[in-house]
Amino acid sequence: MAIHPELEVEAVTDTEGVTIPNPLLQPLKINEINGRRKRAEDSQWVVAAPSNTSSFKLHSSKGKPKARRWDHILSAESKRREGSSLKRAAKWLGRPGLISLGGGLPSSDYFPFDSLTFKAPVVGHFSEEETHDSGIDITSGKHDLAINKSIFDIEISFNYGQGSGAAQLLRWIAEHTELAHKPPYEDWACTMSVGSTYALEMAFRMLTESGDYILSEEYTFATAVETAAPLNVRVAGIKMDEQGLLPESMDEILTNWEPAARHGARKPFVLYTVPSGQNPTGATQGTQRRKDIYAVCQKHDVYILEDEPYYFLQMQPYTGADAPDPPPPASHEDFLKSLVPSLLSMDVDGRVMRMDSFSKVIAPGCRLGWITASEQIITRYKKHSDVSTQGPSGMSQLVLFKLLDEHWGHSGYLDWLIFIRMEYTKRRNVILDACERFLPDVVSWKPPMAGMFHWMQVDWKKHPHAKTKSVTELEEEIFMASIEHGSLVMRGSWFYAENDIEHDTMFFRATYAAAPSDKIVEAIKRFGDAVRESFGLPAIEYEVAENGNHAIDSNGKVENDSERRKLET
Amino acid sequence: MAIHPELEVEAVTDTEGVTIPNPLLQPLKINEINGRRKRAEDSQWVVAAPSNTSSFKLHSSKGKPKARRWDHILSAESKRREGSSLKRAAKWLGRPGLISLGGGLPSSDYFPFDSLTFKAPVVGHFSEEETHDSGIDITSGKHDLAINKSIFDIEISFNYGQGSGAAQLLRWIAEHTELAHKPPYEDWACTMSVGSTYALEMAFRMLTESGDYILSEEYTFATAVETAAPLNVRVAGIKMDEQGLLPESMDEILTNWEPAARHGARKPFVLYTVPSGQNPTGATQGTQRRKDIYAVCQKHDVYILEDEPYYFLQMQPYTGADAPDPPPPASHEDFLKSLVPSLLSMDVDGRVMRMDSFSKVIAPGCRLGWITASEQIITRYKKHSDVSTQGPSGMSQLVLFKLLDEHWGHSGYLDWLIFIRMEYTKRRNVILDACERFLPDVVSWKPPMAGMFHWMQVDWKKHPHAKTKSVTELEEEIFMASIEHGSLVMRGSWFYAENDIEHDTMFFRATYAAAPSDKIVEAIKRFGDAVRESFGLPAIEYEVAENGNHAIDSNGKVENDSERRKLET
Repeated sequence: MAIHPELEVEAVTDTEGVTIPNPLLQPLKINEINGRRKRAEDSQWVVAAPSNTSSFKLHSSKGKPKARRWDHILSAESKRREGSSLKRAAKWLGRPGLISLGGGLPSSDYFPFDSLTFKAPVVGHFSEEETHDSGIDITSGKHDLAINKSIFDIEISFNYGQGSGAAQLLRWIAEHTELAHKPPYEDWACTMSVGSTYALEMAFRMLTESGDYILSEEYTFATAVETAAPLNVRVAGIKMDEQGLLPESMDEILTNWEPAARHGARKPFVLYTVPSGQNPTGATQGTQRRKDIYAVCQKHDVYILEDEPYYFLQMQPYTGADAPDPPPPASHEDFLKSLVPSLLSMDVDGRVMRMDSFSKVIAPGCRLGWITASEQIITRYKKHSDVSTQGPSGMSQLVLFKLLDEHWGHSGYLDWLIFIRMEYTKRRNVILDACERFLPDVVSWKPPMAGMFHWMQVDWKKHPHAKTKSVTELEEEIFMASIEHGSLVMRGSWFYAENDIEHDTMFFRATYAAAPSDKIVEAIKRFGDAVRESFGLPAIEYEVAENGNHAIDSNGKVENDSERRKLET
Repeated sequence: MAIHPELEVEAVTDTEGVTIPNPLLQPLKINEINGRRKRAEDSQWVVAAPSNTSSFKLHSSKGKPKARRWDHILSAESKRREGSSLKRAAKWLGRPGLISLGGGLPSSDYFPFDSLTFKAPVVGHFSEEETHDSGIDITSGKHDLAINKSIFDIEISFNYGQGSGAAQLLRWIAEHTELAHKPPYEDWACTMSVGSTYALEMAFRMLTESGDYILSEEYTFATAVETAAPLNVRVAGIKMDEQGLLPESMDEILTNWEPAARHGARKPFVLYTVPSGQNPTGATQGTQRRKDIYAVCQKHDVYILEDEPYYFLQMQPYTGADAPDPPPPASHEDFLKSLVPSLLSMDVDGRVMRMDSFSKVIAPGCRLGWITASEQIITRYKKHSDVSTQGPSGMSQLVLFKLLDEHWGHSGYLDWLIFIRMEYTKRRNVILDACERFLPDVVSWKPPMAGMFHWMQVDWKKHPHAKTKSVTELEEEIFMASIEHGSLVMRGSWFYAENDIEHDTMFFRATYAAAPSDKIVEAIKRFGDAVRESFGLPAIEYEVAENGNHAIDSNGKVENDSERRKLET
């Protein structure tokens, strides 16, 4: 998985090579795009034009093997899907001189918008304050394409489009995917989604039948379970450790699959996994773990749904409360090298559908993400999208294109991701420090390496009522006690992959993504109080020092040593 | 269906009444909203807050009957659907002083946007030129709610939300729906969709099982058929006239339904219909037609999916090429009265799910529409939306809220719709004039009263090869000839509700929505040439006059009488 994005060696002759800068990591200027990128056909920039990832690849994937075919796992629904006949009529539009009275596309004369402007940070000055003070206004006019000012504008983005999204932004997405993952097979492709949750539902409908099981972590994203359940698709939970799902547990489940013990279901052939900063456990699969998981999927011919909203929320190593913070990545190359390689990057078979999201690194309100998979899967996805959502919001597409392609470029976006990484590292450290300070010994945790979630185990067997009450009852008791103390954390049981089996562990999930640091600290303190109260442990005495919370400053740091000692009792 | 939106009479005592202006039709100013509307709970404006249509209704619907229950037609998938456990946790957030480490909502600190601005027309100056010259900039700041500048901002709209969309825009939508339709039962509600096509797919999944038939017009929106087909749901086509589907044909199909003749399918209980400006036929159901259709649905207990993207593209009466244009509606009241009442407005049972769209009257790129139905249906819809798309783009929601609620208000939006009506009337008249001028006698049509589509019948039995070639072969021949002449129109056969029965009529669909007037005229001329060529009719002689198209000006009007006479040969 050697990634050397800053430098590329291209063969010049059989025996010579020349080292050239990776064009994607140089800032792209609008008038240079055509020079640095492949010459794009102008016809793909117009309203509702079809586009194809292959025309956006900068490093040729020629010579790599093609993806395997997945016909044998496609659902009957997906096989019946023929796509949009109306969108297919777009193929005639390229004819010179043709006038179309075909598609029912409204004239942009009647879009009541003359321009769209947003204020965004310049590279290197990313904080909210800096954005407010020194951010710049980025404007799209209505007819910028017609006047050669931009390849994307209101006229195009605000009209109907293809289900895969507009070529303008799709190109950037394909380039970014190539930069971060270099999929090791030839016919990979990208298409936009209206968000990873709906992409997941579409994947379930493409790959499963009523009565099937899919595989996932034993604690998993509740929405995935709740998306599968109405389809009468169940989830088989794979045992986990701090690196997420255990390949040997997955192998064991598949090897010993008994339909009779599983509502008659056939052996699963789809894995849903969140490899980095898994929701809810915060677990991140290491490189070797991913290779082992991929090998088990090859062994049992399992297709992988790689859900990676938190991939770029991989944080700096955790060095403990008192150790100095490690320095940030020194270069884009160091940053990309610091990331655990994706399953997509090791996907020699084309058995991965990766879901990427802007929700955690730009804004959830974009409702725009993308998937990467083999052309076969992308084509089926697009056929569905063309007749359902018809692609993501054009307003979102235009804003993201202007920000990511024209303003920041790939280079500036990586700088932004490094900024986010350092911010999440700070937040993660705040919650870990607070937990060390305020939580009683019956609560334990592993420092999360990625994502938004801190996963706290409660040793419920030490609870005075452990003999008379169930783990679920005690979990609810502690949850309600925490609410009473003014702190909302999520119950681990809300994330069971399987609700119909016995569980004997108790967890709570806390996010460090949302609240300001001082609130995170206060909420953890309150949660600690609730656990102590439930367990009948003595309350810690910091009430006087904490009058008005002034013992804790806005960074969540205790103000002085004497206060700190009190808190650490 | 008397609608008197400008004036409302409210009971003061049993024997007195007072006439008050309809508050929705007065321009709303931001600082007056609370005074004119019900006092809204501030908690519904915050990030991902739940909301409820009932709190937005201005005219009490109390005392009206409740909608019927539809449990007996819900699909197994819908019955299994329990919604999002994570979004339900939002119910705790209202507790005073609570700190949430619950939902994985990213902090708006990391949204790289400080403001969003768009330039939009002021009321009464709606044309593209006027918007460019005299439009005004409308800006949303990042934290406008916190500083009491607006109830909606980037912090809220760009974060996660509820599947129904944000309360801020949902309130406007509910008010607009009340203004236009006044549903005649108590528990109607609205929820946003990410567009009517996906809303339709969700409805099919909610209401049908594999193997079912639904009912629709015999020529219908191809996407509806292509959405149903993968679900193994077929469409039974109802005969039509120029007012759309024939109630007696529908009654006959249902009365004589034979499962054996219909792949074993049970009797249909869902009607999909586009009542105004139907796609592809352009047919608009009149008021009595709608009442008759509703009565047949009551007789056979059929649930109605009312798809109305073209409702506000109802045009002025067509008076012919040489008659003066009728004057525009003189008031909002006149305008609303001029619209054929919706099925929703006569829905005493709550058996209608109406789909509205901004695609045809604002811009398709919003990817934002809404549905109106009984609370039971809306709740099921929201449960699905919460775990699939999670609602429409927040960028789209913010732009539409700023435009529709804060800038135009209901009154300004009605003015905009009247503007659109007059523009579409002009376009419709251009295509009709061109057809009268350029099409041979074997082509006939009815003037469309609404929508974007002109539906042209070709009397293929007069074709010299009618005995030796099928209607499909001849349709393809004329279609390809039209492409060769440089004009793209859609083939009628692409819109068959049923592909597996014989058809003996030939139609082509042309839209007058997209191209400029002179192009519409030219394209119709070319289509006429193609039909003449195929039928072996003599070409009309206008080639010399038309050198460089200069015989037709930019309004599609022929420049002088002598040219005109030539064209009319």
